Amino acid sequence: MPEIDPAGSATPREVGVALIGYGTVGQGVAALLADHHDQWVATLGLDVRLRHVVVRDAGAPRDVPAPAGSLTTDAAAAVADPAVQVVIEVAGMVDEGRHLLADALRAGKHVVTANKALLSAHGEELTGLAQEHGVNLLFEAAVAGGVPIVRGLRDLVRVDHVHTVEGILNGSCNYILTAMSEGTDYETVAARAQELGYLEADPTADVSGADSLRKLRLLASMAFGGPVREEDIDCTGIDRITAADILALKAAPGGPREVRLLGRAQLVEPGGQAYTAVVEPVAVPQDHWATGILGSTNAVTLGADHVGALTFSGPGAGRYETASAVLTDLVDVLLGTVPTASPLGDRALRNARDEVTGRWYVRSSDALSDQLEPLLERTHLTGPLSGLTRVVARDELAPWLDDPESCVIGWEPAAHDLDPEEAAR
Amino acid sequence: MPEIDPAGSATPREVGVALIGYGTVGQGVAALLADHHDQWVATLGLDVRLRHVVVRDAGAPRDVPAPAGSLTTDAAAAVADPAVQVVIEVAGMVDEGRHLLADALRAGKHVVTANKALLSAHGEELTGLAQEHGVNLLFEAAVAGGVPIVRGLRDLVRVDHVHTVEGILNGSCNYILTAMSEGTDYETVAARAQELGYLEADPTADVSGADSLRKLRLLASMAFGGPVREEDIDCTGIDRITAADILALKAAPGGPREVRLLGRAQLVEPGGQAYTAVVEPVAVPQDHWATGILGSTNAVTLGADHVGALTFSGPGAGRYETASAVLTDLVDVLLGTVPTASPLGDRALRNARDEVTGRWYVRSSDALSDQLEPLLERTHLTGPLSGLTRVVARDELAPWLDDPESCVIGWEPAAHDLDPEEAAR
Repeated sequence: MPEIDPAGSATPREVGVALIGYGTVGQGVAALLADHHDQWVATLGLDVRLRHVVVRDAGAPRDVPAPAGSLTTDAAAAVADPAVQVVIEVAGMVDEGRHLLADALRAGKHVVTANKALLSAHGEELTGLAQEHGVNLLFEAAVAGGVPIVRGLRDLVRVDHVHTVEGILNGSCNYILTAMSEGTDYETVAARAQELGYLEADPTADVSGADSLRKLRLLASMAFGGPVREEDIDCTGIDRITAADILALKAAPGGPREVRLLGRAQLVEPGGQAYTAVVEPVAVPQDHWATGILGSTNAVTLGADHVGALTFSGPGAGRYETASAVLTDLVDVLLGTVPTASPLGDRALRNARDEVTGRWYVRSSDALSDQLEPLLERTHLTGPLSGLTRVVARDELAPWLDDPESCVIGWEPAAHDLDPEEAAR
Repeated sequence: MPEIDPAGSATPREVGVALIGYGTVGQGVAALLADHHDQWVATLGLDVRLRHVVVRDAGAPRDVPAPAGSLTTDAAAAVADPAVQVVIEVAGMVDEGRHLLADALRAGKHVVTANKALLSAHGEELTGLAQEHGVNLLFEAAVAGGVPIVRGLRDLVRVDHVHTVEGILNGSCNYILTAMSEGTDYETVAARAQELGYLEADPTADVSGADSLRKLRLLASMAFGGPVREEDIDCTGIDRITAADILALKAAPGGPREVRLLGRAQLVEPGGQAYTAVVEPVAVPQDHWATGILGSTNAVTLGADHVGALTFSGPGAGRYETASAVLTDLVDVLLGTVPTASPLGDRALRNARDEVTGRWYVRSSDALSDQLEPLLERTHLTGPLSGLTRVVARDELAPWLDDPESCVIGWEPAAHDLDPEEAAR
């Protein structure tokens, strides 16, 4: 690994940083870097300089001014600058980002990124390059914002066998679902979330589950040590859930349930190669860990053979929350405290999506109602066209999953739940 | 730092380990070390050998056999063996442990320990020695068993200002309190907890709060960067709480409350030097994070300026759970990925115990009942001798805190709660 001088020395050593992207998170990173500059000179012996701030429009108004002379629109030149040893990317570009970061890694520069879309699409390629060139590619901020789940998982897989990853990975969806739980309908809550800045102008990636899917893909790949790709994950969003569904589930037989958008990946058997991975709304009972996760909070539970279940929760987004995660990675790079071994892994895995079974709450459109009846164990959960299925393969629900007039919600426990006795040593 | 060869090499490099203590956790460590041996040869290029297992009685029966020829009663010789580079201490001895580990550190050996009592008593001395001799002293397993809170806090203080540590730090007490919440009285639950092995033969350290206090002392010292010592923490246990208190609080005006034994340390003002630190049972409302922490689970919330609140939860004890935390530290030592800077810090702090104010539930003995009335805001919470205080200094409750016939329980929010607006940037 290129030496950055981890020890505090009499003359602080200069480290050049290029920051690509200067929106909410980028400005947070710049503010925190300025804030920590003197402390890091004193404690780490490192004089960290923000040399380039790459933007699309150098004239746009911003809350946090960039260091004098640092603003540029030439990303390639910023990355190529020999005085730059670390590239921080928070711009969210997929194709352009791929080439920029690949160039940075090939030039022997460390990369810290918050770009889940880029990593989800090209993670193995980029981590492979990082390994080849002996540099770090770190992405704590790409999953669950300020929650240190990437490093938690990285530490855990070294000493334990992780068989389950389950998480609330999108704060906007959780904000909407917990607000709907108080009786407001989807459209009203979504509009309010957009006003408050919790939801993007185009909220499709959030409410369709695509954003959660990308994060689950990264966590599952780290957990199981091999590629779990986007297309390997079945995904249902929250945009078809109505206030009536939520209220029906709060009054469900067997006790009230709250709806959470969960990403869940599990090994089908302990230590095995076959896994299942699903993102979908799930009606969790009151004693489920996810019930207590409210508003825009993110939370992830890791299930492992030795340690049982570990849960991490905290802010999933926000300027300083996400910037703080970027800085945690940056400090690891500066101290040289992360091995460059690929965190995504290259173990062969088998996607067992056809083995996903469970029970689901289904509210059906008129068109599909006749087909629903034979699958149901309990009918009339909200009205004549809804109910709870018996244990079925998720595949059998394809007609309702595909139908925009129907709504399908998981019923805990779903998919493969490892027998705790079997999972324990 | 002494070189242990972090890179995978063609010929695996031998690393000698001495394990002091071979009870529940020690046997777990030995089992996991054996389990991971081949994986670590392959992935880390390190051939980790358990050379000595130090016990008091070599003939005692054990579930996990120690490696042939490794059992010894001579701790000093095991530590002094030049083939030993890492000492793992899980014996729980305070005075003897202090000298053994000091010798190990002086000899340039890394130390991994689960011994909270030893660290609480001599933490600064030992971390100072580690720093002086350029080796690691790691103690993930000493606080909250399998929950990676020590490393979470270590990472966070580098990039953020941590102003609050709040945790459920003793699984036995939480087991007792959550079982009492279902209506069983203290004695019955405590007896059951002892039978199940959740409670030590002498449960005083657990139920008096002393065990939680030691862990809070370590976390608070890390969080605030200076010594918060045992005597700086006010402490009340759970042994005076009756089923009637629990039930009264479940029926409290303003909504049901659950009792949790919380350790809480806070800076009185952001970035300041004055702090308060208290371990006491607290009646938390339903939307408090601690309400959902059931049974022997441990959980810690860190409050910080940039990241807001981060919560870590998981198993607080158990053979493989705790051993897994020991192994996480061992891997960090082997990879050389932890700086040797003192995690306890030497910043000057001021204990502001006389500034702890709040509201408390008090059930008074007859003897003190006359004095109680003027402090109460609401009376008759369980009976004529109980109630909820107005905002008072904790000091004013000294007569009831000292009286074995009275019971005092915190009422959320207590102590200094930083204004979230003020704490935010």
